[in-house]
Amino acid sequence: MFDLLIQKAHVLRISPAGDLRVLRDHDVAIEGNRISAVEPAGTISPGRAREIIEAEGMVAMPGLINTHSHVPMVVFRGLAEDVSLEKWFNEYMWPLESNLQEEDVYWGMLLGLAEMIEAGVTCVADHYFYMDQAARAVEEAGTRAALGWAVFGDQGEAMLNRTAQFVERWQGAAGGRITTWLAPHAPYTCDDDFLRASAQRARDLGVGIHIHVAETTEQTQASLEKRGITPIRVLEETGVLECPTILAHAVGATPADIQLLAEHPAGIAHAPKTYLKLAMGTAPVVAFREAGVPVGLATDGAVSNNTLDVWESMRLMAMTQKQAQASPEVMTLAETLYIATRGSAQVIGLADRIGALEPGYLADLILVDVSGTHVQPLHSVTASLVYATRASDVQTVIVDGKVVMRDRQLLTLNKAEIIEQVGQSMQRLARRIPGRRIQVYNP
Amino acid sequence: MFDLLIQKAHVLRISPAGDLRVLRDHDVAIEGNRISAVEPAGTISPGRAREIIEAEGMVAMPGLINTHSHVPMVVFRGLAEDVSLEKWFNEYMWPLESNLQEEDVYWGMLLGLAEMIEAGVTCVADHYFYMDQAARAVEEAGTRAALGWAVFGDQGEAMLNRTAQFVERWQGAAGGRITTWLAPHAPYTCDDDFLRASAQRARDLGVGIHIHVAETTEQTQASLEKRGITPIRVLEETGVLECPTILAHAVGATPADIQLLAEHPAGIAHAPKTYLKLAMGTAPVVAFREAGVPVGLATDGAVSNNTLDVWESMRLMAMTQKQAQASPEVMTLAETLYIATRGSAQVIGLADRIGALEPGYLADLILVDVSGTHVQPLHSVTASLVYATRASDVQTVIVDGKVVMRDRQLLTLNKAEIIEQVGQSMQRLARRIPGRRIQVYNP
Repeated sequence: MFDLLIQKAHVLRISPAGDLRVLRDHDVAIEGNRISAVEPAGTISPGRAREIIEAEGMVAMPGLINTHSHVPMVVFRGLAEDVSLEKWFNEYMWPLESNLQEEDVYWGMLLGLAEMIEAGVTCVADHYFYMDQAARAVEEAGTRAALGWAVFGDQGEAMLNRTAQFVERWQGAAGGRITTWLAPHAPYTCDDDFLRASAQRARDLGVGIHIHVAETTEQTQASLEKRGITPIRVLEETGVLECPTILAHAVGATPADIQLLAEHPAGIAHAPKTYLKLAMGTAPVVAFREAGVPVGLATDGAVSNNTLDVWESMRLMAMTQKQAQASPEVMTLAETLYIATRGSAQVIGLADRIGALEPGYLADLILVDVSGTHVQPLHSVTASLVYATRASDVQTVIVDGKVVMRDRQLLTLNKAEIIEQVGQSMQRLARRIPGRRIQVYNP
Repeated sequence: MFDLLIQKAHVLRISPAGDLRVLRDHDVAIEGNRISAVEPAGTISPGRAREIIEAEGMVAMPGLINTHSHVPMVVFRGLAEDVSLEKWFNEYMWPLESNLQEEDVYWGMLLGLAEMIEAGVTCVADHYFYMDQAARAVEEAGTRAALGWAVFGDQGEAMLNRTAQFVERWQGAAGGRITTWLAPHAPYTCDDDFLRASAQRARDLGVGIHIHVAETTEQTQASLEKRGITPIRVLEETGVLECPTILAHAVGATPADIQLLAEHPAGIAHAPKTYLKLAMGTAPVVAFREAGVPVGLATDGAVSNNTLDVWESMRLMAMTQKQAQASPEVMTLAETLYIATRGSAQVIGLADRIGALEPGYLADLILVDVSGTHVQPLHSVTASLVYATRASDVQTVIVDGKVVMRDRQLLTLNKAEIIEQVGQSMQRLARRIPGRRIQVYNP
């Protein structure tokens, strides 16, 4: 018996080599938390399934993966607009975050997870504070997450220890849906000793490191001026790159940095909306890919992105790369969808388990309506997914074999209660008190 | 008596000088096809209204305006991806358009209008073929449109006459909802004599000219090499710029061109998604604005944009301008929303009638849901509109005082029938027959 049978969907199939096909009218069978069969419609008898989802004419594809976010920051959404990166940190984000309480992280995480489920995002690599609360929210939401407790160097070894204890508490929790990472903030907020200690601790724990690096060319330049090496070289010299690493942004990676990354188990979390909004430049995604460095899609936090919409990240990545290369022929539909699926899974270290809709993979998948006026007529399923589909077209979301949204109804979370709870704290969260900030930006 | 009373919305108010306010909890009263009052909630007695729409917590704002599209091209959506601009024209678009029949324009226009109504677009400046069919569709849809029948120079004066007859037939039709324009295609497809004749005809008819110009810097360069002047200067020398003009794109406008435009009744239709996807460069929007040249938002056609989503155009304009200027401080929320409303109305020559939600203006307005997980908590209504709102958040659409969509249900169009009709022609429309194309791109 199968636990779940999805009938008559168009299944998006991307090979490890990047070849892309749409299997028209196929059924997907799920047993426990795994995909057990993908067969032409009618091949699998409905009698063999405990539950059936009719998906005629919908696209079935791997759930989207958000490889770098600060999900609970949704509680500050819209509070820092039209300001420079320096002001964004020093006058907005870091003062605002001094208002943060543990419960804000819990409710913010729930709100962001609800938003992501509604947008077809089944897994997020999150980098924030009070991460026990985030993990609790993930347990409830039923989604998958790679969680790291963010820490600044000036918080010292005691705080690093706390983030390591978080790793020990939650690694493999929620039936395996939660994996954990260490999350030193960035080379410009963590000194070499702290990075070295973080790398050592990660090796001891057998986990990876999720870190911001070379967010802009200016950061790379500042590092070169202050100490003669790039921020990415700093990660190598401190042993960070020996661990599996999720590198957020790396917009300012140099050609030499890219070669260095190609020799290490590092992947890039790419969040193009943040780069556009904060005028941070364009990340060298084409060069990363040519060098064999994995690239995944990310939203970053909602104070730079405003949403947690990975569809928009996908579209912006493709378009800004075409623009940067002055060629509409780069970042094809196939490559873009590869990055959105297998590429993103690889960045967060789960390429053997998620990112593909194939027998043996975990059952993290979404059903996308393609009947809307904005995608019809459907000459191309793949062009539609990359350039026309909206988050609101996602109808049904399955994570680890369980349906967490069906026909746009959230099944695991109480949306009204979450919005109500977050709303109650709005005024307190929006205050900026002169001199109060959690950190200073001066890379 | 009022015909329609919208209760308790947050009303977006933008002054002619660009000052932006959100009037919390206001009622909007409509009499006939005009807005007659905007007052604090409770001021207007519900007993004075024939119909009431509850809009508590929604944003009421002017309907979006699409200042340049080829709406019926939705029938070719997704058929030309990842190709150079030259191939896009010569191997895809112009061969595909040789399949076009009058009925395709009718059904394509209906499909595109349905998509736009669902996205809160109440008015479109359309530039295409067989425009009687487009006008028929606009009549039925109940929206507003500025229609121009596209013509190439090699079609000669007889065809120019036909497009002028279209103007005479439809100017002011559909109760004033339709205005008309002449629409010579571009300086690179119309010679000077043809442009001169078009300008003369426009003056005789008392209408403006909607034309593509300087779509890329390469086009400007090619014109300079072939004849020593820019494409925009060609428009001046042929008298086109003496007429009100909608200039599509002008990505390749030089500083001298911009000064020239500032001295003429010209506005820019800005379609950033096309520029990104086809790697056409970034339009000098900040310079246009500084020079006092009106700028409006546009989607262009669905074969470059893939959708007709003006929200996405708005967001991409703001973000690509921040990127191009290397400053997150330019193209603020207020300026962006001004361009989306009053600016766009000005470009299509209707600034005295639409683009503002104020007494005396035509009642073209939309209600936007801001309760979604992707916009909550709502610290900033305006940040939400520019960076988080999706087309699918538009709940209710009113054009010329009539409700054309209510609670996301289209009231004037039969969506299922339209999609069915367009679907029946898909195969015929997708054929590309060697040697058959309606024009050659060689600027």
